[in-house]
Amino acid sequence: MKFACFVVGSRHRIGIVDIDASSIRALDPSLHDMIELIEKYDEFDVLQHLEGPAIPLEQVKLVAPINPRRNIFCVGKNYRAHAKEFSGSGYEAGAVKGAEIDEFPAVFTKPPSTVVGNGDTVDLHAHITSAVDYEAELALIIGKTGRDIAPDDAYDHIWGYTLVNDVTARDRQRDHKQWFLGKALDTFCPMGPWIATADELQADNLELQCWVNGELRQQANTRDLIFDIPTLVATISAGLTLQPGDVIATGTPAGVGIGFNPPRFLKPGDEVSLSIAGIGTLSNRFE
Amino acid sequence: MKFACFVVGSRHRIGIVDIDASSIRALDPSLHDMIELIEKYDEFDVLQHLEGPAIPLEQVKLVAPINPRRNIFCVGKNYRAHAKEFSGSGYEAGAVKGAEIDEFPAVFTKPPSTVVGNGDTVDLHAHITSAVDYEAELALIIGKTGRDIAPDDAYDHIWGYTLVNDVTARDRQRDHKQWFLGKALDTFCPMGPWIATADELQADNLELQCWVNGELRQQANTRDLIFDIPTLVATISAGLTLQPGDVIATGTPAGVGIGFNPPRFLKPGDEVSLSIAGIGTLSNRFE
Repeated sequence: MKFACFVVGSRHRIGIVDIDASSIRALDPSLHDMIELIEKYDEFDVLQHLEGPAIPLEQVKLVAPINPRRNIFCVGKNYRAHAKEFSGSGYEAGAVKGAEIDEFPAVFTKPPSTVVGNGDTVDLHAHITSAVDYEAELALIIGKTGRDIAPDDAYDHIWGYTLVNDVTARDRQRDHKQWFLGKALDTFCPMGPWIATADELQADNLELQCWVNGELRQQANTRDLIFDIPTLVATISAGLTLQPGDVIATGTPAGVGIGFNPPRFLKPGDEVSLSIAGIGTLSNRFE
Repeated sequence: MKFACFVVGSRHRIGIVDIDASSIRALDPSLHDMIELIEKYDEFDVLQHLEGPAIPLEQVKLVAPINPRRNIFCVGKNYRAHAKEFSGSGYEAGAVKGAEIDEFPAVFTKPPSTVVGNGDTVDLHAHITSAVDYEAELALIIGKTGRDIAPDDAYDHIWGYTLVNDVTARDRQRDHKQWFLGKALDTFCPMGPWIATADELQADNLELQCWVNGELRQQANTRDLIFDIPTLVATISAGLTLQPGDVIATGTPAGVGIGFNPPRFLKPGDEVSLSIAGIGTLSNRFE
């Protein structure tokens, strides 16, 4: 199933998106938020909690499917061609030629205040950066508490998948060396449009695409991740307890703005759309 | 005033620590947690909400004074002598000789799951690291929502101060290049013993000390921060809305374990104590 968060009138609700993504049915308000649904999912019969008729999707305002309780976990340089374009761009502090592919995954975070939903506007923050870039990514939604999760058990801990645009201020990413400040500006994490539950997808074989103003910029398959999903879950959960509702963005493929010469940074009015077949499309305008 | 969180019997309470730090008086349960106190502080007369007699401090179990709603903001390499000892240690990925002092502050995060209180045990995670190190730091507690805070206004946004031990697995910090995974292990952020409100301290002139098993290892004054408190608040809040209850750890001075040759990493049974005059002492055993 696909679960979305939305606003209809002034009410915030969780809903189930129908199979052709044309309408949504609300759940009754017995659940506080998506993380509570995830925590109770095994004992909670969602079909017993539907309320009211299907609503055409264009009549509701989608919001981000998760309101995170801590920062989002993000992985960097996790597709080979992107690792090379980043290292060669001049925007990676300490880049070493010939050592573009890291031996261990680079992990950083984005605070919950970065998260916006499908259709929301992303702020270019022109007073502090002139180098805003997009990064289309598959994101995992953790469903089950766990620490030191073995790779073979990783998929048991994943409740679903969504899309994340890991928006980045490349100048701040470079200047501060640690990437956090370049990744953490308000509205810099479009997420959605909804979560597809894990049973719907084969996550290691998904086509990911990203367009800027209709021009295809990124196209890759998750089978080409350098550190695959079981490795990421095992690495991040080593000594660090993952919790239901945690979000792990798995890294972006080649084709970001700094992959061009000169770089093609985002401008006011640009529209960035990400898509994964089996999940959906996430679109945001930048201003 | 000094505000602590503590457990007496099975009840969690906020309390006011008396002036010689020998006893604590509980507030009634009208407040949910410390962040709610911070949010309501200007209109909330704490002295009207005291409940019961003063309790000797040794009869209560202190817990961390903040249960953070997002990751803790942490600053790296913010004292000159420490920046040099770190760059020279072999544990800084991409260290460049002669460029130990960064032009811009390095900022990373620690998730809420790292936070423990005074007296709690810190887990050495021996199955994944053999290089656990201490970092004594002054931490700021944000009191007022703000974005793009000017340096001159920074102190208006600080509600109080506490101590943080930014415990670090040096091998993971080095291997993963981005520091997060070396900083984020469960229990790796002792915090406390309580919060001293901003009116009690002159934060740019505080003596900070750290002992391991009674041996003085770190001693510095916050006047020697490379990026001072107004600069840190301005830098982090640029495009990023700070919220009441946010915690910013300001960086550690020289004298950490990797400053020695060979490095002196923490062992089972070690006791690390941090102190700032005017705040208090935070002690934790490592196992």
